[in-house]
Amino acid sequence: MIRMYDIIQKKKEGKALTTEEINAMIDGFTKGEIPNEQMSAFAMAVYFKGMTLEETSALTIAMVHSGDTIDLSGIDGFKVDKHSTGGVGDKTSFILMSIVASLGIKVPKMSGRGLGHTGGTLDKAEAIPGVRIELELDEFQRIVTDTGACLAGQTGELAPADKKLYALRDVTATVDNISLIAASIMSKKIASGADGIVLDVKTGSGAFMKSFEDSLALAQAMVAIGQANGRKMASLITDMNVPTGYSIGNALEIIEVIEVLNGAGPTDLRDLCLELAANMVHLATDTAIEACREQVQTQLESGAAFEKFVEIIAAQGGDVRYLHDVSLFAEAGIKHEIIAPTTGYIAHMNAEGCGLASCMLGAGRQTMDDVIDYRAGIVLKSKTGDFVHAGDVLAIFHTNKADSIASAEELFLKSFEFTTLKADVPPLIYARVTTDSVDILK
Amino acid sequence: MIRMYDIIQKKKEGKALTTEEINAMIDGFTKGEIPNEQMSAFAMAVYFKGMTLEETSALTIAMVHSGDTIDLSGIDGFKVDKHSTGGVGDKTSFILMSIVASLGIKVPKMSGRGLGHTGGTLDKAEAIPGVRIELELDEFQRIVTDTGACLAGQTGELAPADKKLYALRDVTATVDNISLIAASIMSKKIASGADGIVLDVKTGSGAFMKSFEDSLALAQAMVAIGQANGRKMASLITDMNVPTGYSIGNALEIIEVIEVLNGAGPTDLRDLCLELAANMVHLATDTAIEACREQVQTQLESGAAFEKFVEIIAAQGGDVRYLHDVSLFAEAGIKHEIIAPTTGYIAHMNAEGCGLASCMLGAGRQTMDDVIDYRAGIVLKSKTGDFVHAGDVLAIFHTNKADSIASAEELFLKSFEFTTLKADVPPLIYARVTTDSVDILK
Repeated sequence: MIRMYDIIQKKKEGKALTTEEINAMIDGFTKGEIPNEQMSAFAMAVYFKGMTLEETSALTIAMVHSGDTIDLSGIDGFKVDKHSTGGVGDKTSFILMSIVASLGIKVPKMSGRGLGHTGGTLDKAEAIPGVRIELELDEFQRIVTDTGACLAGQTGELAPADKKLYALRDVTATVDNISLIAASIMSKKIASGADGIVLDVKTGSGAFMKSFEDSLALAQAMVAIGQANGRKMASLITDMNVPTGYSIGNALEIIEVIEVLNGAGPTDLRDLCLELAANMVHLATDTAIEACREQVQTQLESGAAFEKFVEIIAAQGGDVRYLHDVSLFAEAGIKHEIIAPTTGYIAHMNAEGCGLASCMLGAGRQTMDDVIDYRAGIVLKSKTGDFVHAGDVLAIFHTNKADSIASAEELFLKSFEFTTLKADVPPLIYARVTTDSVDILK
Repeated sequence: MIRMYDIIQKKKEGKALTTEEINAMIDGFTKGEIPNEQMSAFAMAVYFKGMTLEETSALTIAMVHSGDTIDLSGIDGFKVDKHSTGGVGDKTSFILMSIVASLGIKVPKMSGRGLGHTGGTLDKAEAIPGVRIELELDEFQRIVTDTGACLAGQTGELAPADKKLYALRDVTATVDNISLIAASIMSKKIASGADGIVLDVKTGSGAFMKSFEDSLALAQAMVAIGQANGRKMASLITDMNVPTGYSIGNALEIIEVIEVLNGAGPTDLRDLCLELAANMVHLATDTAIEACREQVQTQLESGAAFEKFVEIIAAQGGDVRYLHDVSLFAEAGIKHEIIAPTTGYIAHMNAEGCGLASCMLGAGRQTMDDVIDYRAGIVLKSKTGDFVHAGDVLAIFHTNKADSIASAEELFLKSFEFTTLKADVPPLIYARVTTDSVDILK
C-alpha cells in the first residue's frame, strides 16, 4: 500500500521516487482519491528538491496513461510533429508543415487555442474562412495521408492528470520547475502519437523561460524523456525577446505566413521556419542536417511549400482564394498609428507586452470564454536594433475596440526601450539540442 | 489587495512576509476563501525556507485572533499555566498545580484529551469518580479564585485557524517545522489567557521532537513568542525516552500522582514536578529560582500540596474518598505479567511503543470516537538503566480486552533493548530556557 503522505515525505527529504510510487500518485490524483492539498504540497517539495530524469520520465508516462492516447497507425510512414513553448507572433507551424509535407513527410499537427499573451495556432487557422480544425481522428488521418499534413485540435482527452496538476500548480506558485514543465509538455506530445518531435523552446522576455540556462535545461530534459520513450527528438532554443515576424494577431499573421511561403516576408520568421523544418526532415529521414537545410530551402524557394499549403487548407475546407489574394481578408475598422516617442535605436522590446497589447485590441483571449476578433492585432514597423526618429510610425494597431486603444498603446509603448547607441540584436536561434549534443549557435 | 499566490511565491523565494500579509492569509484561510491546496503549498515552502521570529509571532497572533480568547480577568492576581508537548505517563499537571496553588498562586489549567500514544490530562482527571471538567468560564474562574486552581477543558473555540492548518499539515508532511509547531502551540496558550506559561518541551523517542537541538529551537521560539506578546515565559527541555513515572493509563496514573503528593512515588516524576512548579512560582513571584525550588519542595513534603489537591478535586465534584484510599479505584479484570526475555541492563525503552501498547489495552484512543477504559494501562517494574534477569516481571498489563494482550505485548517488548554492559540513564531535565538564557542541565 503506497501512501501519498509517504511520497510527499520522501520527496521532501530529497529522495528519488520509484516508478511504482509515481504511478500510484498519478492514478490516485486522477481518480480524485488524492486530494489537491497533498498534490500541491508534493509539487512544492519537487520545486525545492527536484526530480531525476528517471522520475520525470516516469511522471510523464504516468500522465500519458491517465487518459487517451492517439493511435496514428492509420497513417503510413514516419510522422513528425513540432511543439513550441509559446511565443508572440509565432506562426511557424503553417510554414514548416507546408515545407515538410512538400517533401513527402507526414506532419499530423495537433495544436491548441491561445490564452493570454500568446496566440493559438488553431485560432490563426480559423482566420481563413471555411477552415475546419475540429476533426474526427478518421478524417484527420485521411487528410494527413492524402496531403501530407493536417492541423487540428486534439481529439480525446489527452493527459487529464496533467491538466489537473497544471491547474493546481498555477495557483500554488509551483509552475516554475523544469521537471514539472517537461513532464507536462511531453505527456501531451507523447500521447499525441508522433514518431518524431522537434521542440521550439522559446527564451527571453516574451517566453515562459526567461533565461537561456533554464531553457537549455528544459530542452535537454524533454529531449531525454522523448528519447527514453521511443521518440526521435531534437530541440531548438530560440529567441522570444522580440516577437517573431512583424505581425501579431490572427488574420495578420496568416497574411505574413503567405508572404513567407511566397518567398518574401520577414527574415527572422523565414529563417526560424527553415531551421525547424530542417530538423523535422532530419528526424524523419536521418539525412545529415546540412543537407536537410538545403532541401527545405529549395522547397520554400521553388513555391512547392506554398502549393502544399494551399492543398492542405483546401482539404480542411478553407477558401483558398484568400491564400492567393490576401486583400480578401476582412480588415479591422480602426487602424491606429503608434508614433515613436523618441529618436534612437530600439534597445529592447518586451514581447510579452506586445502580445498583451494585441490581446487587448481583440486578437486574443483573457479567459477561455472570450471571443476572438480575427481582424485585430498589431503590425510592427520596427523591431529591436532598428533606428527610429521621433514621430516615425512604430507600429499600426488594427482593432474594432476603440475604447481599448489608449490602454493598449500605453502597455505597448512601455515595452520599448530606446538608446542612442547602436543596440545588439538578440540572435534568432541560440542552440540546437539533440540526444547526443548541444550545439550553441549564438 | 494581498493575493495568496504572491504570498506563496514570496515564501518560496525565502523572503520574510509582513504582518499584514500573514493576517490576510490567516483571515482568508479561516473564512475558507483561501483553498487548502494553497495553504499546504505555503506550509511546504515554510518547511524549506523557514520563518523569522517576527513572522512566527505574527502567525501566532493571527491564529489567536481567528477565534475566541479567554478573558481570565475575573481571577485576581498573576495566573500561571503549564504546557507539555506531550509524553507517555505524563501526569505532572495534577501534582504541580497542587504545589503551586498551595503557595497562593493561581493556576487556571485548561487542558485537552488524549489521542494516539500520549494520554490526555482531562481523561486522567475523569478517572476520579465525580470530577467535572466541562465547566462554564464563570464556574472555572470561581473555582480558581476559591481554591487557587482548576483543571478544565477549553471553553469557546480557541485558534480555529490553527486547528484547520494543523489538520492540513498532518496529511501533507508539513508538521515538522519549528515555526509552525511553535505558532500552533503558542496560539492556543496565548488565547487561553494566562499571564505566565511554563513549557515542558519533551525530547526523545516518545516525544514529538526526537532531537535535543530541535527541542531547544522549539523552546526558544515559543519563549520568544510568548515574551513578545506580554507573557512571562520559561521552558524546560525534559526527557521522553523513558515514560514519566512507572504508571501508564488513567486511574493508574492518578494513583501514582497521589503517591507523589504523599511524599512517595517515583523520583523522576517527583523531581520533574518540582522543577516545573519552581519555574511557575518564579514567573508568578519573581523570586530567585533557587528559593522557588526550596519553596515547592517544602509544600510537597509538608503535605500542603496533597491537601490542596483534595480541595481542588472536591471543588470540581470529585469523590475525595478515592484520594485518601486508592484501593477504591476499580481495577481491570485482567492483570497480565510481562516477563523479561533476557538477562541484562535495559539499554533503551521506546516510550512511544509503551504508550501505544497501553492504548491498545484500552487506556487511550486511536480515534476521537473511541471510549477509554480508565482501569486499563501498564505498570512498569523496571525502566532504562535497570538490571533484570530473564524471567523477572518487567511490567504488568491491566486490561479488560483479552484479545488485545498478545499484540500489545509484542509491541511493548519490541520497545525494549537490553545490553550486558551497564547502560547510561538519560538525564531527566536537559535544559532550562528563559528569555535571557539557556541553562544546559544535562
